Amino acid sequence: MSFDKLISRIIETGNPTVVGLDPKLAYVPDFLKKHYLDEDGESLKAASRALFRFNQGIIDAICDIVPAIKPQAAYYEMYGHHGIKTLERTIRYAHLKGMYVITDGKRNDIGATMEAYASAHLGSCMVGENECIPFGSDALTVNGYLGTDGIKPLLDVCEGTDKGIFVLVKTSNKSSGELQDRLIDGTPVYAIMGDMCEEWGKDTIGKYGYSSVGAVVGATYPEQLTELRKRLPHTFFLVPGYGAQGGGAAGLTGAFDENGIGAIVNSSRAVMCAYMNEGCDPRDFAAAARREVLRMKEDITSHIKIK
Amino acid sequence: MSFDKLISRIIETGNPTVVGLDPKLAYVPDFLKKHYLDEDGESLKAASRALFRFNQGIIDAICDIVPAIKPQAAYYEMYGHHGIKTLERTIRYAHLKGMYVITDGKRNDIGATMEAYASAHLGSCMVGENECIPFGSDALTVNGYLGTDGIKPLLDVCEGTDKGIFVLVKTSNKSSGELQDRLIDGTPVYAIMGDMCEEWGKDTIGKYGYSSVGAVVGATYPEQLTELRKRLPHTFFLVPGYGAQGGGAAGLTGAFDENGIGAIVNSSRAVMCAYMNEGCDPRDFAAAARREVLRMKEDITSHIKIK
Repeated sequence: MSFDKLISRIIETGNPTVVGLDPKLAYVPDFLKKHYLDEDGESLKAASRALFRFNQGIIDAICDIVPAIKPQAAYYEMYGHHGIKTLERTIRYAHLKGMYVITDGKRNDIGATMEAYASAHLGSCMVGENECIPFGSDALTVNGYLGTDGIKPLLDVCEGTDKGIFVLVKTSNKSSGELQDRLIDGTPVYAIMGDMCEEWGKDTIGKYGYSSVGAVVGATYPEQLTELRKRLPHTFFLVPGYGAQGGGAAGLTGAFDENGIGAIVNSSRAVMCAYMNEGCDPRDFAAAARREVLRMKEDITSHIKIK
Repeated sequence: MSFDKLISRIIETGNPTVVGLDPKLAYVPDFLKKHYLDEDGESLKAASRALFRFNQGIIDAICDIVPAIKPQAAYYEMYGHHGIKTLERTIRYAHLKGMYVITDGKRNDIGATMEAYASAHLGSCMVGENECIPFGSDALTVNGYLGTDGIKPLLDVCEGTDKGIFVLVKTSNKSSGELQDRLIDGTPVYAIMGDMCEEWGKDTIGKYGYSSVGAVVGATYPEQLTELRKRLPHTFFLVPGYGAQGGGAAGLTGAFDENGIGAIVNSSRAVMCAYMNEGCDPRDFAAAARREVLRMKEDITSHIKIK
């Protein structure tokens, strides 16, 4: 258990970032889209195949310098079972290239149903005598609104493996405060959720001091990042909202511990659409993604030193 | 918008219940499992095909007496993209049989990502000039922890259609109180979430007085059901936890308004596994499911009269 595998990859690459693969069809260069739409028509299948090829190009271009990818389930579900096949293939391909995979699904349910999600995304399921691995991701984002009944089944599946979860604590969006900032006996809801993460993870602490229960804390709230880092010393952070959503690198420092670990920062659109932002030839989309990843690494590591 | 279509079906059938299709492979009778595992091996594909045939049998047996089904996404995701294909086929088949479909996915995210979930489950997505419908469900369960940013995109997709959402308010599980019962300025979190549902739905009220933003409130908490029915006069309730989780029919009355509408009660395992509980021939699994549905209808309508 714990996030040791992820943290080791972060230290090896010297890069505490994760690339979000949230591939809208509009992000896929026309030459790729045309190829698959010509083959399979204007169908969910064609779109899903184009998305996989796009993901594959980006993974090839960044796998030696970025520790992890974070595919967002919604963008695959949008293309039905064909899209889900692309999610499976993307996870497998990233693993083949040595990357850590965080499936961003924000799943939540209770008991046997949460066990099913855990089996689906992180574990395996038996069909007859055959142990099948549906997705085989390394970590899953989850929503803790249902309490311990919704988290325990995940911990059972993670036990004895390198798998982990990230619980939504303080999300990066503007309206996150509507519930998350409200005070319960003087403590904001997000801090209470954070405390639950510490409690859920307490028996799973790994060699870097972090448990297998991480937290999602948005880059857009630097004060809360700093406060939560101190409050939750064993909880590893997944930090969305850098760049496009307005969170700057300077505001991220509070998310990291004195060794420069404790968090991984996500960027999605800026990497996937780097070729558009650069105005370069769309055929160079993967090289542009690599350039953006290097720029982001430099930006973040100019503020955070991994010891 | 609004739940008019669902409520009309409830009134037509005189039955305020929904059958949860959460098909574990262990629920599928051996003769069906054997057939598909012989054809496709012990694979996710074989399991998914067996689950579809099982669902189809149950839908055939109940479609004239039950208004809706509620497939739980986790049990389909557990079989990867093959399972998701079974989810698509199940939704299409239920529609063909005139049933209303609530996808129980408890999805949650923000902005463009929530739009993608909305397009996936309730709406459509464009591939070139072609409008594709990935799942085409009628309603989706969602988690409101992220606030308005996570709900607004759903409302945009629902607008001008008969589609709706159910937001988790007070869930049926034991640990639901860990966060949901905590007090914010004297009001429990679940009631605050409920108030947000009223607010989100206020412009979408249909002919029965209910908006298109429903709430999930567990049968296991009858007092809260009654309290929330009064507090949220325009919010239609999806009520899990009847039967297997311990909620009895007498405790459900508070969920309904003076016309006997305002809620739909879910049963999953008791219907799917009725043939096991009865000890009848597994080949009669569908007929046993129908008998259980009739028993449940009688139990509930002995307490609730639809006017």
